[in-house]
Amino acid sequence: MPGSREDFQAWTAACGQRVEQALERALPAGGRLPATLHRAMRYAVLGGGKRVRPLLVYAAGEACTGAAASAGAALDAAACAVELVHAYSLVHDDMPCMDDDVLRRGRPTVHVEFGQATALLAGDALQTLAFEVLAGMPIAPGLTVQAVQALAAASGSQGMAGGQAIDLDSVGKSLDREALETMHRLKTGALLRASTTLGGIVVGASSAHRTALDGYAQAMGLAFQVVDDILDVTADSARLGKTAGKDAAADKPTYVSILGLDAARGLAERLRLAAHEAIAPLGMGAARLAALADFIVLRDR
Amino acid sequence: MPGSREDFQAWTAACGQRVEQALERALPAGGRLPATLHRAMRYAVLGGGKRVRPLLVYAAGEACTGAAASAGAALDAAACAVELVHAYSLVHDDMPCMDDDVLRRGRPTVHVEFGQATALLAGDALQTLAFEVLAGMPIAPGLTVQAVQALAAASGSQGMAGGQAIDLDSVGKSLDREALETMHRLKTGALLRASTTLGGIVVGASSAHRTALDGYAQAMGLAFQVVDDILDVTADSARLGKTAGKDAAADKPTYVSILGLDAARGLAERLRLAAHEAIAPLGMGAARLAALADFIVLRDR
Repeated sequence: MPGSREDFQAWTAACGQRVEQALERALPAGGRLPATLHRAMRYAVLGGGKRVRPLLVYAAGEACTGAAASAGAALDAAACAVELVHAYSLVHDDMPCMDDDVLRRGRPTVHVEFGQATALLAGDALQTLAFEVLAGMPIAPGLTVQAVQALAAASGSQGMAGGQAIDLDSVGKSLDREALETMHRLKTGALLRASTTLGGIVVGASSAHRTALDGYAQAMGLAFQVVDDILDVTADSARLGKTAGKDAAADKPTYVSILGLDAARGLAERLRLAAHEAIAPLGMGAARLAALADFIVLRDR
Repeated sequence: MPGSREDFQAWTAACGQRVEQALERALPAGGRLPATLHRAMRYAVLGGGKRVRPLLVYAAGEACTGAAASAGAALDAAACAVELVHAYSLVHDDMPCMDDDVLRRGRPTVHVEFGQATALLAGDALQTLAFEVLAGMPIAPGLTVQAVQALAAASGSQGMAGGQAIDLDSVGKSLDREALETMHRLKTGALLRASTTLGGIVVGASSAHRTALDGYAQAMGLAFQVVDDILDVTADSARLGKTAGKDAAADKPTYVSILGLDAARGLAERLRLAAHEAIAPLGMGAARLAALADFIVLRDR
């Protein structure tokens, strides 16, 4: 039944399959030279992850049904591109000079499996591939250019990479809540927001629809991180597929360390409701986005 | 006098100033947050380097004078973008897990000056900025999309990053000349070729002109590396601004180690003449490209 839990699960499974196939097509074959680099890129991307960013692309695109015949392929490409940027950031973030993490999605991290030099290059090449895939979208070139601009702005020194730099500087410091929000707005929020934005761009959403999407995306970008911080203290490593309790061990400020667990949970819930409110102007088309907001806030890993 | 050595020097100086100003505008101010990241990005890019890739962009653009009013700004953006990709690759290539180099352009490398984590992020963000700058070009969106595709294809796992991966694998191995050429065609050739291609794309060059440019670019991409290998054994570190003799010390195969010094010099000269021949169909407009071929092959650093 539409709107049911089963319906949403079927939709996320279908989207997951779509993006997995699109990623499989976009990534060079593992046997293609340079083979080690290509195997490392595939290892970093395929067969794992919650694919939250692709889900945001698809849900946003479906919510603004300007859907031309080519919109499906363009949504696949945009979903691929945001996941490739996310994957590249994880590969580099896990390296010894950054977070020095050995476990990701329940497997050894890329530098553990392939060595640091290959991990560095694989991350670099995954970022490049993201832009290559976006540039190949079968839509009006003017929309493609907007999509490239949105992804680049969200990924660079005033987006994701900038947030990671602030994160680096914050270890052992006591950030106030405003500074913590700035860091997360860049580090994870910017790419989550861009995922929603891209979904709207590639289907040619109206300016009013884009504004609604952006209100939703801002709330969800923050909610995602608040929930991540909650799970870091409440879940175990096996469930997370990555090392739990790591932020506390590294003395990193989190929403839980600043607000306390109960207040952090309250904040996540308020952001979930704010996301629902923002997409009200989109009407029934936004049902997936609404369900996705619930999924992101109420997840247990 | 046009075509004289002085004239060419004045042109390269003017282009150098143009791209330096464009890079200065494109890079976030050093005081802007996150300040350390932005300072590292500026350190990696500004005030150094031969700017060979920007020169190729400008010379190719001038050779195919479809020059619309906006071509100047678009050439600046394309020149910026290729130099940003080049700079990012140097930052990552110098890191301890790659070449572990401490000297670049006569100064400490970025990871020595700012630490490895910041160097990693600065390289990442410089790559992103390259695509952001390209996407902002004031030309027809269809040409912008072509430019993004060309730059991405030249930079990724089947271009520059792929060449670096082959280079990594080749240390201590005896590559034959064909394998060495494949490596260099990707590692340095692809971006040099893309620089020439981008110059043609952004001025809306005809298909015949683009073919001529590509013949030139293929010869020069290879020639550049042959000359680099020659200089690695004939020049000293002070002149190069980077560590000389490094390839031989690392037991890396080079054109000199495979062909010998005299035959490597002969190859560079044949490639220079091939580049001249390729651009004959462009007529007088290609004078800068011709002079640039001479400059690249006859340089001493």
